[in-house]
Amino acid sequence: MNAFDFLTPPRRGKPRKNGITMVLDKGMGIKTARDLMEISSDYVDFIKFGWGTLPLHRRDAVMEKIEMYRSFDVEAYPGGTLFEIAYLNDKIQEYFDEARSLGFETLEISNGTVEIETDEKCELIEKAVNEGFQIISEVGKKDPVRDRLLSPEDRVELVRADLKAGACMVLMEARESGHNIGIYDENGNVKEEEFNHLLNELPQDRIIWEAPQKNQQVYFILKIGPDVNLGNIPPEEITALETIRRGLRGDTLGKVNL
Amino acid sequence: MNAFDFLTPPRRGKPRKNGITMVLDKGMGIKTARDLMEISSDYVDFIKFGWGTLPLHRRDAVMEKIEMYRSFDVEAYPGGTLFEIAYLNDKIQEYFDEARSLGFETLEISNGTVEIETDEKCELIEKAVNEGFQIISEVGKKDPVRDRLLSPEDRVELVRADLKAGACMVLMEARESGHNIGIYDENGNVKEEEFNHLLNELPQDRIIWEAPQKNQQVYFILKIGPDVNLGNIPPEEITALETIRRGLRGDTLGKVNL
Amino acid sequence: MNAFDFLTPPRRGKPRKNGITMVLDKGMGIKTARDLMEISSDYVDFIKFGWGTLPLHRRDAVMEKIEMYRSFDVEAYPGGTLFEIAYLNDKIQEYFDEARSLGFETLEISNGTVEIETDEKCELIEKAVNEGFQIISEVGKKDPVRDRLLSPEDRVELVRADLKAGACMVLMEARESGHNIGIYDENGNVKEEEFNHLLNELPQDRIIWEAPQKNQQVYFILKIGPDVNLGNIPPEEITALETIRRGLRGDTLGKVNL
Repeated sequence: MNAFDFLTPPRRGKPRKNGITMVLDKGMGIKTARDLMEISSDYVDFIKFGWGTLPLHRRDAVMEKIEMYRSFDVEAYPGGTLFEIAYLNDKIQEYFDEARSLGFETLEISNGTVEIETDEKCELIEKAVNEGFQIISEVGKKDPVRDRLLSPEDRVELVRADLKAGACMVLMEARESGHNIGIYDENGNVKEEEFNHLLNELPQDRIIWEAPQKNQQVYFILKIGPDVNLGNIPPEEITALETIRRGLRGDTLGKVNL
Repeated sequence: MNAFDFLTPPRRGKPRKNGITMVLDKGMGIKTARDLMEISSDYVDFIKFGWGTLPLHRRDAVMEKIEMYRSFDVEAYPGGTLFEIAYLNDKIQEYFDEARSLGFETLEISNGTVEIETDEKCELIEKAVNEGFQIISEVGKKDPVRDRLLSPEDRVELVRADLKAGACMVLMEARESGHNIGIYDENGNVKEEEFNHLLNELPQDRIIWEAPQKNQQVYFILKIGPDVNLGNIPPEEITALETIRRGLRGDTLGKVNL
Repeated sequence: MNAFDFLTPPRRGKPRKNGITMVLDKGMGIKTARDLMEISSDYVDFIKFGWGTLPLHRRDAVMEKIEMYRSFDVEAYPGGTLFEIAYLNDKIQEYFDEARSLGFETLEISNGTVEIETDEKCELIEKAVNEGFQIISEVGKKDPVRDRLLSPEDRVELVRADLKAGACMVLMEARESGHNIGIYDENGNVKEEEFNHLLNELPQDRIIWEAPQKNQQVYFILKIGPDVNLGNIPPEEITALETIRRGLRGDTLGKVNL
């Protein structure tokens, strides 16, 4: 039972299809991560091991971490950049095998840094699905100059292609910082017109918006609702984000429909 | 005995009436919080469980955390927004009862988000005092637009009303971010003229300035002295703030009178 | 063996003379620090106990922390400001004795806040070396107004004097924040012209660039290479920095020569 449970607004528990929260683990100590899960794992659906951090950690530590997260019903998966590095090194099969061997069941497939044409990306998604993985794909470029070349219409098309190829969800790229990329301007504010296009054209239950900054999280929750899917959440913001979803913080108090 | 104790400038130990530090806990793991207290609890007087985070945590975890903090002579209390939510739901008595049952002895009473008239807020403070709680009240609005409507003269009056109603101390609202609110401008710098008015008119030993940013902490300590009361300090800044108070950091070295 | 070890780019292990990472500990709990070392100590050479934090912590806790870090082959040392405070209090010998007694083998000698003439600073470096300590010195002023008075030519001269006096390495001051100081402008961007002068004139294997911000780390690694020495890294960025060094993050993927 929660403290002050008569003030706890309801929200669907795990496993859920909407209102998903994906957290970014960029190298937390295992005991520290477990300690955080003990108090707030109910509010986390996915943990991403950011970009190429995994090849810097010991296999046994990674396996222990995956297992620990899974014991809290949190699904851990490797960042898309690591997949891109495997692609670049022509080690796709080794990548799948090692991921499976470590205990991963979900993978991210992206082309944010390495040049992979849409058709080939889709084939890779299909291949990964055939290997038995659940696939989250990502749309967007990490380099702001290249990312700006993608129109909202392009993004819609790319998302649709990934979903058609078998991705269960698609991440909208915003990096760890959340500014000057995708639908965010240099200050991390949402570019309304571009966002509205994506909002109208895309199935929101299949999109995860990377929204590392609090103002972004508030924006999405007020605009789409508490069950918007949000990603790249810093670990120390897990509970804070959930209070925003549930109207337990000034920014959304009385403004969300649960 | 401290390391390099011949270089440790003296400051009044706990319990103290001045130089109070209030830290913001927005959902730390319990072991992580205990580990931090083991090294730096001497420099923390109060811990606030931020806004409405408590209804997202299990009763047993909250009770363990309150007890843990108390074992380090740190007084934990729920954020004012939670009280406002109870008010909005017409659950004031339940709020007091649950708070007592969890082990809280201090409460915050604020009207930063929910509309509560000054008279009623004062009655609520009195009621809470009669229920046996020590009350910290808060003055200011979380919405910058509404907050700007409060003149320095208004704030002085509101603080005095709260103190008269029985609040032991009054927080000057600055949120977790510390910018574009209260005496802070959009960049988090202090608006000198407004601040000077508050400084002249208010009893500083009864005020806790929310000052999450380092430049703000330095400002207050240079202006008011090392025994200024400061709040909304991020947990990772506990030792850092104490070095600023004691002239152990470049910003205040040789500039504070202990 | 690392996870995805077939994707782990090689880099020289510890002890190393180049590619050094110095991390800033501003008061972490001991268990939390140990937990972080367990997953990422391979990527840390030095830990600095920031500015004057040490006199606020108990001797036994500090000794335990030094010993813990050393068990991971990480060398901990006190911040330069603490040395300056000892100088100001005419307690230099006591400072050396207490440092030795606590278990320190490395010290930092700086004059970032307290006025110590170059000649005297060099004598102090010599004295400390004669006391048996390994010395890291620091060049730069913590006050931006005073720091701006140092031309690139001045900095080169000061670095050379420190090295000649016996410092094993020299830190380029950037504080915890990394903006409006040294080679960084108000936004934390590198002032290219000034930096190029330092780059051409100074032996890079003897310089540690304080680079707390990610954009600064990326800049140095792209400009100087993965084996640039970097300091004042926040603890939570240890693994992230190493991914940047090794081309495991979008910013440097395919752009570093290992």
